[in-house]
Amino acid sequence: MSIKKVIPRLPSGFKELLPSHQVIFEKFKRQISSTYESLGYIPLETSNLELTEVLLAKGGGETEKQVYSFTKGKNNLTLRYDLTVPLARYVSQNYSQLTFPFKRYQIQKVWRAEKAQKGRSREFYQCDVDILGNTSVVADADSVFAVYSALKSLNIPKFTISINNRKLVKEILSFLEVGEQSTEILRIIDKLSKIGKSSAIEQLNTLVKDREKSLKILDTFTLKGDFMKIESIIKECSLEGSEGATELQSLYNLLISMGIDPDYLEIDLSVVRGLDYYTSSVFETFIDIAVNYGSIASGGRYDDLVNYYSNQRLPGVGMSIGLTRLFEVLLELGTLPEVSAVSTRVLVCALSEEFNSLSAEILTKLRKENINSQVYLGKNLSLNKQLDYANKSKIPYVVILGEDEIKSGLVTIKNMESGEQKTINLEETISLLQS
Amino acid sequence: MSIKKVIPRLPSGFKELLPSHQVIFEKFKRQISSTYESLGYIPLETSNLELTEVLLAKGGGETEKQVYSFTKGKNNLTLRYDLTVPLARYVSQNYSQLTFPFKRYQIQKVWRAEKAQKGRSREFYQCDVDILGNTSVVADADSVFAVYSALKSLNIPKFTISINNRKLVKEILSFLEVGEQSTEILRIIDKLSKIGKSSAIEQLNTLVKDREKSLKILDTFTLKGDFMKIESIIKECSLEGSEGATELQSLYNLLISMGIDPDYLEIDLSVVRGLDYYTSSVFETFIDIAVNYGSIASGGRYDDLVNYYSNQRLPGVGMSIGLTRLFEVLLELGTLPEVSAVSTRVLVCALSEEFNSLSAEILTKLRKENINSQVYLGKNLSLNKQLDYANKSKIPYVVILGEDEIKSGLVTIKNMESGEQKTINLEETISLLQS
Repeated sequence: MSIKKVIPRLPSGFKELLPSHQVIFEKFKRQISSTYESLGYIPLETSNLELTEVLLAKGGGETEKQVYSFTKGKNNLTLRYDLTVPLARYVSQNYSQLTFPFKRYQIQKVWRAEKAQKGRSREFYQCDVDILGNTSVVADADSVFAVYSALKSLNIPKFTISINNRKLVKEILSFLEVGEQSTEILRIIDKLSKIGKSSAIEQLNTLVKDREKSLKILDTFTLKGDFMKIESIIKECSLEGSEGATELQSLYNLLISMGIDPDYLEIDLSVVRGLDYYTSSVFETFIDIAVNYGSIASGGRYDDLVNYYSNQRLPGVGMSIGLTRLFEVLLELGTLPEVSAVSTRVLVCALSEEFNSLSAEILTKLRKENINSQVYLGKNLSLNKQLDYANKSKIPYVVILGEDEIKSGLVTIKNMESGEQKTINLEETISLLQS
Repeated sequence: MSIKKVIPRLPSGFKELLPSHQVIFEKFKRQISSTYESLGYIPLETSNLELTEVLLAKGGGETEKQVYSFTKGKNNLTLRYDLTVPLARYVSQNYSQLTFPFKRYQIQKVWRAEKAQKGRSREFYQCDVDILGNTSVVADADSVFAVYSALKSLNIPKFTISINNRKLVKEILSFLEVGEQSTEILRIIDKLSKIGKSSAIEQLNTLVKDREKSLKILDTFTLKGDFMKIESIIKECSLEGSEGATELQSLYNLLISMGIDPDYLEIDLSVVRGLDYYTSSVFETFIDIAVNYGSIASGGRYDDLVNYYSNQRLPGVGMSIGLTRLFEVLLELGTLPEVSAVSTRVLVCALSEEFNSLSAEILTKLRKENINSQVYLGKNLSLNKQLDYANKSKIPYVVILGEDEIKSGLVTIKNMESGEQKTINLEETISLLQS
């Protein structure tokens, strides 16, 4: 009976990895979670589906257009579009059972029905750290340090974490007497890297109607570097000791004290982050040789996360690695390590079905010695088929069990890379595989 | 400005874990994946959303009623309800780029809009292993051994994996001359544990209209034990050397050769598994002291997984741990280990903000020695607040930095369990924490 075939495919904007990449992606996830854990963040997972009225309590804007929502039974449900709103909901819901400050990490997928384009997936991983219930700049440093440590542990190309402080930005704009227009100015500064300097000048000029002032704004907000580099601006604007300047300086110094390589950190006054809920510190991260791919990790401090759910006030700070995006950048750059999808060290090849139970016993002995091993599971037990499987699976050794080997009580072990092979007993095989 | 509050809650049938449980759940997931990997299974993740026409290519039945489907733009999308159909789709889609036999594991959530009831979540984790592109009983043994090893690694209460073979069941029914009614009989046998023996007898009698035969069927299919235990039935039915008997015997013997503790394995002729796509081996797993909670891991061999997507024929075998279900059972049994949600060994308590950079440096030194440590991030830096946080978070040690300590260049370290504390230098602190 022939069955009507359906073309196997995914919805547009959705992607999956082949095994050789999936295995690296898994390593990345594990590396990030173990780093976060070592720094005292506790794991959290939230439901992928939320009640729409709860998830979109804040409502409005771009978000609502981009979510996947639908009705099932009596409920309208939505797939989460970030990990921050579900965190707010979770914390409000379980408030009395949590310990504050609440430090959690969360590595899960989110969904956004964005216009399908290169580098944008509609389903992607975020790896968030947040600290809720605190106002100390030490927490800001803690979250940045967590992301820095996680990224360093992945051995990716050199990256730079840019930090800034929105209070300081506003203080500077007030000093320049353009405080009233700060929202519009911030919007122009935010897209500076996309639109370029000359276009930014034009837009600023249209806004403040003063070419010199526009130039001054641009000069100021394109300053980058260590704290020394922006100290002159702070003095020039008489902002020594201002809230924003103090916070930014403390954050910078704390991060250095915590051991961040200064080469990986800079203050960038143009980083303001589009999202309006950040209130002081803001962070963005770029791979130096791939700045045009966009930020791979970002975040900031927010005044209150839970005000739609609770009368508690919960200021906090957080940062998130866009792991799917990062992975795609590394793929494009060709800097992913070549690894074997299988962690098997040796394939045990029985050349006939009658040796099945013998090969099972050998397998058991190898595994007892913590040598990752498997038997060939195909139907055709020819040696060529089995060597081909080992080759394609990048398994470094095979152990062969044929008539001759069974008679002599020995096994033949073959190094798949060098082609070298010898016939020895099992103890010798084990010590060879352990070396 | 007061904001209208929305009650923070989840849709009915959805659950989340508190941190102290989440941390165990994460450990379980990691333990299972590392066991699967050590046995040569490669990791796979598929998209959570699928095109409905692709996912439901097979169509019909209960499945369609239980899925979460919706329209977005031009597409009708569905959240996956198991990991097997997406595997079939993935393998057909990427056929030429995979190595066969294809051994993969997959630990992801699935969604089913089942009637909300105790022990049934609408969102739950499955942890699958499958081997595609083979017909050897060695593969059946491989998948059962993978699940056995994974469950053993979790240190859960004693469980039993029940194996059976549908071919043998059919052979026995043919011998008893009720082969024509095998589907109905299998349905009765399948629910035996739910309906009880006497009700089963009634139903069988209604079907075969022969009380003695009904008793014989029931006697046969309630046999359980090692292969010896069912050998007499096989002889009685003249099924020595039949396909089903041979496969079941090989599977049992192979599993013992691979090192499965015989106490954890039994042949149970009543295990037939409801789903109709299994063709020979079938597996189910129960925790001995919680049989009524249902199977925590099951699977079997199927003839062809991809026939809706491809002309390739891909017979395979697989088994899946229902991790969410298992976790709920362990919670109910009260056998989950008590662990700290935080993996932090020491909390560094600065008693004043001016010691922030000093505490950052101490933190860095502790972390360099691989001692998981964090600083207290709350606003109120009173010692009591900080000790309370350490206590609630089950952090075993605190290091205190106050005026006295700074002056003397020493730190005070306190054992949170014994209450013992001493003032020593940092080197001594490090060796104390490492011991």
